[in-house]
Amino acid sequence: MKILLIGASGTIGSAVDNELKDCHEIIRAGRNGADVSVDISSPESIKEMYNQIGKIDAVVNASGSAGFAPLAELTPEKNELAILSKLKGQINLVLLGLNYVNDGGSFTLTTGIMMDDPILQGASAAMANGGVKAFVKSAAIEMPRGIRINSVSPNVLQESMHKYADYFRGFDAVPASRVALAYRKSVEGARTGQNFEVY
Amino acid sequence: MKILLIGASGTIGSAVDNELKDCHEIIRAGRNGADVSVDISSPESIKEMYNQIGKIDAVVNASGSAGFAPLAELTPEKNELAILSKLKGQINLVLLGLNYVNDGGSFTLTTGIMMDDPILQGASAAMANGGVKAFVKSAAIEMPRGIRINSVSPNVLQESMHKYADYFRGFDAVPASRVALAYRKSVEGARTGQNFEVY
Repeated sequence: MKILLIGASGTIGSAVDNELKDCHEIIRAGRNGADVSVDISSPESIKEMYNQIGKIDAVVNASGSAGFAPLAELTPEKNELAILSKLKGQINLVLLGLNYVNDGGSFTLTTGIMMDDPILQGASAAMANGGVKAFVKSAAIEMPRGIRINSVSPNVLQESMHKYADYFRGFDAVPASRVALAYRKSVEGARTGQNFEVY
Repeated sequence: MKILLIGASGTIGSAVDNELKDCHEIIRAGRNGADVSVDISSPESIKEMYNQIGKIDAVVNASGSAGFAPLAELTPEKNELAILSKLKGQINLVLLGLNYVNDGGSFTLTTGIMMDDPILQGASAAMANGGVKAFVKSAAIEMPRGIRINSVSPNVLQESMHKYADYFRGFDAVPASRVALAYRKSVEGARTGQNFEVY
């Protein structure tokens, strides 16, 4: 399959790349993407990316940002990063990419454990995760031409625990390689409308 | 209690008003609110509302709009109504209202069955519902001064079935009076971080 992987150079993206590259052709995208550059918070940038690459069999998104702040300091403005990037960015990859995905293809988005097991300062990210999960479940029943859509919800990564340990006390971190399996399941399997939890 | 009820003149809002008015002082808000006018899609309008009414014990929101469109016709622009109103509108009621709610008070927001049991054309609304549910669950662990936060997720209402029956084939519609009980549970009960499903 020809797979567009957005956020290919990140911790999850690299693991997905490793997991899939032997069996598939990977187009690596990101802010400074190896093959194509995209800023998912900009619909124009998403359109340019799809125009540039043409038809693909699968879109895998491992990118998306959200702000972290104590709830009492979370302003509508600070909440906007999660809205623009992790939420609308991911949804716009679907809305603007539908016509570029071949029959029987798939979209795989990324949510995260914080919507199910909240952490301090995580309300904005949780909001975006929950919005993406519900969108995926609902959009799945209207996908044309046998196209599927799922999301993967990773726990905190072992590879990131040195940075985020203070936020994820007591969390049983998972290796990115295990998270990558869920993306493979989404791309190569047959299920749709799922949020694959890697907890 | 002094309860700010936003969307007080809607089908759910009226039922909540009926349920609570004998035991509480209700401040009725909405686009053309009986007591105070507010457009929840505007942070400025929310700020003005809170400035006008001062301290309250509970905020109940029964307002919020979303667009309905087949997925293939859902554009980033058409998705914006749900983002601005049902999602950010409700979250901004919390972020901008925290300092106006008395110790031990509560916020009650509104989600909806479509995030759990998707319908055609409902992906944008489902997204907003899922975002609000996850925000509520996460924000609950950081609420200051014993303030609680919940959401109510109504099934389609019997009172609305004459308008929406084509979208909700086979749904077991519920009376608004039953939905109103969940808001009472949220306001007068002790639970927090919950999404009370009235299915």
